[in-house]
Amino acid sequence: MIKVHVNVSLKSDVMDPQGNAVGRALETLGYPQVRQVRVGRCFDLRMEGSDLDAAREQVVKMCDQLLANTVIEKYDIQIEAE
Amino acid sequence: MIKVHVNVSLKSDVMDPQGNAVGRALETLGYPQVRQVRVGRCFDLRMEGSDLDAAREQVVKMCDQLLANTVIEKYDIQIEAE
Repeated sequence: MIKVHVNVSLKSDVMDPQGNAVGRALETLGYPQVRQVRVGRCFDLRMEGSDLDAAREQVVKMCDQLLANTVIEKYDIQIEAE
Repeated sequence: MIKVHVNVSLKSDVMDPQGNAVGRALETLGYPQVRQVRVGRCFDLRMEGSDLDAAREQVVKMCDQLLANTVIEKYDIQIEAE
């Protein structure tokens, strides 16, 4: 089995109102040292097989087709055998 | 500055209907090798300071107070100086 972790987050030039709201909430709760908050999604997949390169290729396609909106989001893939 | 990445995901014994929906969608799109999908949130924070241990302590408190619902979610913190 192959374990995949995908982080999907907004591109840095895209506004993140949800992140800003979390940032303000953290300030209100007493964490003024927090300067910036960005919120994203993550996916943990388990896949059959053992070929990590082939799996990465498949996951890139999944991200482009379904997991991320590549107009405004970027993704980062971590893959390891299990 | 300190860069923090927090992954918040459902505990393994909690049902994840969103993850199941993504899993079914991936199967429909032609990825039958995907066995399990779990969906979570991630937060990228930038904090003032340079003391990584103190920052980690603060981030644990933020997670317990705001970022995660510790009844059903677990979190994982990665911290690095920037």
